[in-house]
Amino acid sequence: MKEFVKLSHGSGGVEMMELLEKLIVPIFSRSKPPEGFVGLEYMDDGVAIPLPGGGYLVVSTDSYTVKPYFFPGGNIGVLAAAGSINDVLMMGGKPVAALDSIVVEEGFPLDDLKVIVDSMSEVFSSEGVIVMGGDFKVMPKGSLDGIIINTVVVGFAERLIVDAPKPGDKIVVSGPVGDHGAVILLYQLGAEAEEERRRSRLKSDVRPLSKLMLPLVERYGRYIHAASDPTRGGLAMVLNEWARKSGSVIVVEEDNVPIRSEVERYAGILGIDPLYLASEGVAVLSVDPSVAESVVEYVRSLGFTEASIVGEVRKAEKYRGYVLLRSSVGGLRILEPPRGELVPRIC
Amino acid sequence: MKEFVKLSHGSGGVEMMELLEKLIVPIFSRSKPPEGFVGLEYMDDGVAIPLPGGGYLVVSTDSYTVKPYFFPGGNIGVLAAAGSINDVLMMGGKPVAALDSIVVEEGFPLDDLKVIVDSMSEVFSSEGVIVMGGDFKVMPKGSLDGIIINTVVVGFAERLIVDAPKPGDKIVVSGPVGDHGAVILLYQLGAEAEEERRRSRLKSDVRPLSKLMLPLVERYGRYIHAASDPTRGGLAMVLNEWARKSGSVIVVEEDNVPIRSEVERYAGILGIDPLYLASEGVAVLSVDPSVAESVVEYVRSLGFTEASIVGEVRKAEKYRGYVLLRSSVGGLRILEPPRGELVPRIC
Repeated sequence: MKEFVKLSHGSGGVEMMELLEKLIVPIFSRSKPPEGFVGLEYMDDGVAIPLPGGGYLVVSTDSYTVKPYFFPGGNIGVLAAAGSINDVLMMGGKPVAALDSIVVEEGFPLDDLKVIVDSMSEVFSSEGVIVMGGDFKVMPKGSLDGIIINTVVVGFAERLIVDAPKPGDKIVVSGPVGDHGAVILLYQLGAEAEEERRRSRLKSDVRPLSKLMLPLVERYGRYIHAASDPTRGGLAMVLNEWARKSGSVIVVEEDNVPIRSEVERYAGILGIDPLYLASEGVAVLSVDPSVAESVVEYVRSLGFTEASIVGEVRKAEKYRGYVLLRSSVGGLRILEPPRGELVPRIC
Repeated sequence: MKEFVKLSHGSGGVEMMELLEKLIVPIFSRSKPPEGFVGLEYMDDGVAIPLPGGGYLVVSTDSYTVKPYFFPGGNIGVLAAAGSINDVLMMGGKPVAALDSIVVEEGFPLDDLKVIVDSMSEVFSSEGVIVMGGDFKVMPKGSLDGIIINTVVVGFAERLIVDAPKPGDKIVVSGPVGDHGAVILLYQLGAEAEEERRRSRLKSDVRPLSKLMLPLVERYGRYIHAASDPTRGGLAMVLNEWARKSGSVIVVEEDNVPIRSEVERYAGILGIDPLYLASEGVAVLSVDPSVAESVVEYVRSLGFTEASIVGEVRKAEKYRGYVLLRSSVGGLRILEPPRGELVPRIC
């Protein structure tokens, strides 16, 4: 039977993992990477190449398709710059240079393009990342809805963070989760959400995390066993990935996860668990328990005042590869990895 | 007056240069790159970063939007792999690792996706380039016509080729030009070209150029003052860029430019100069005159049997920044840089 790409294949959840593992990874896994190269198995959207003088070159890329391309808290340019910077940071790298490829639809307003490029440039320059080149394409009217931006960020890492959480680790989040996903969802809804949009205080959290990750890695690098930004699929996706890869079980204290009241409220209206909503300015860390409290304190001192320990990694006996959610009202339940197309074109 | 993006802004010609120079370059030029970094001014779609141990890290990126995504001689996957490999080669680099970002429309046939990814993988692995990760996004039906692939290729260069042709240099092309542009044009035309398509022997020349460039750079690297693959805007665009950047004049002997008879014939039917048609498997080199003949011989010995000297770079007196075409039937005429949207979505 002929099969077709589904929206859910791109949503960062179970269907996407299945497609990648069935179709894409096997094809690219035919060649073995040279000694020391770190890629597919640890870092989906990045690559680390060992340098002769020591340390690693880290490269990350992502294509951004978010709709609407202007939204409260940012725009696709901010997202494209911050997103790829954050990916390099989450590998333990210091971002230094960037390339961008813009594909835009014929008829796209030049003023909008200027604002988007300006925003992207501002983010890069605020983080000390130099844009060194790029590509620009135009697709005929009707063949692309708006704009797609691909960014590549190159950085250097003394030590890599390779997403290998260890039993005993504490799970730390740097701030409230789900802001970006909530606002994009609200803006993708049609006319019936207009009233809600008018009075909503929802705002994307999109921002680069250099000011968090660079000092943190400098001070606590060897105690950070995994780091990720919970974008597509939210915190639920990151933790499920970690549990699966490390063959452990991750237990999350539901009440300890910071969530803004407006996100909680809006997710409630829609009947969605905010743990599935994307963040674009939050780090999730798996930290050695010996320093977990100090890490939280340090992260707070860097301006991320709502940083919290939200759970821990345990050796799996029964629930190998699962994430369990403990609520204050009692009992554990499984936090499933996301399925379906919760929000298309979120990033 | 409100302005909008035009198709011609993406065609690699005059309008694209104007847009980039007016809108994008000024924004990104606010920050000065660190000492030794080579980017925007020399290499539009790449960046070179000096390594502590000597040599350069070279990174290139491009987004591929070609339509149709299957065409005689290749498909968008072959193009996306070969195109970014070639960009690294043209900077003097040896490609080692790659990342890919695929954005696909909901409803895209999975079998087609598999063939495309397979082709991309084959090109990368035949050239010894390891795919280390990537991104995968799906856009809702109607918001993207088919598929866009972005590739990033990382390589190392002992010495950079920085596109600085010198007066006296000979212009060498590695083979017949315009094949890719001609076939894409034919396949973008509607029903009235069906008969022509059926009997046409046009075929894209898309292929990676490692087997040409790696030995050539090894042996003649310091004599190659510029290297480029004439994609969007064809040979006319590359030479006009070089003449403009170096402030020289480039004189081309029209009869010496290798062009396949079927490309010549088809371009004639359409009233197009094949020098404006894209190639995806050809190198254009600006070579020190002392070795130009030996370079051509060597390139031929590598299997590129139609390599030829097609012109030379001269100190400009009157025609600073221009490309002049000399035909055997007499007289010089200006080879203008391309304008308008000759072929949209060519790569």
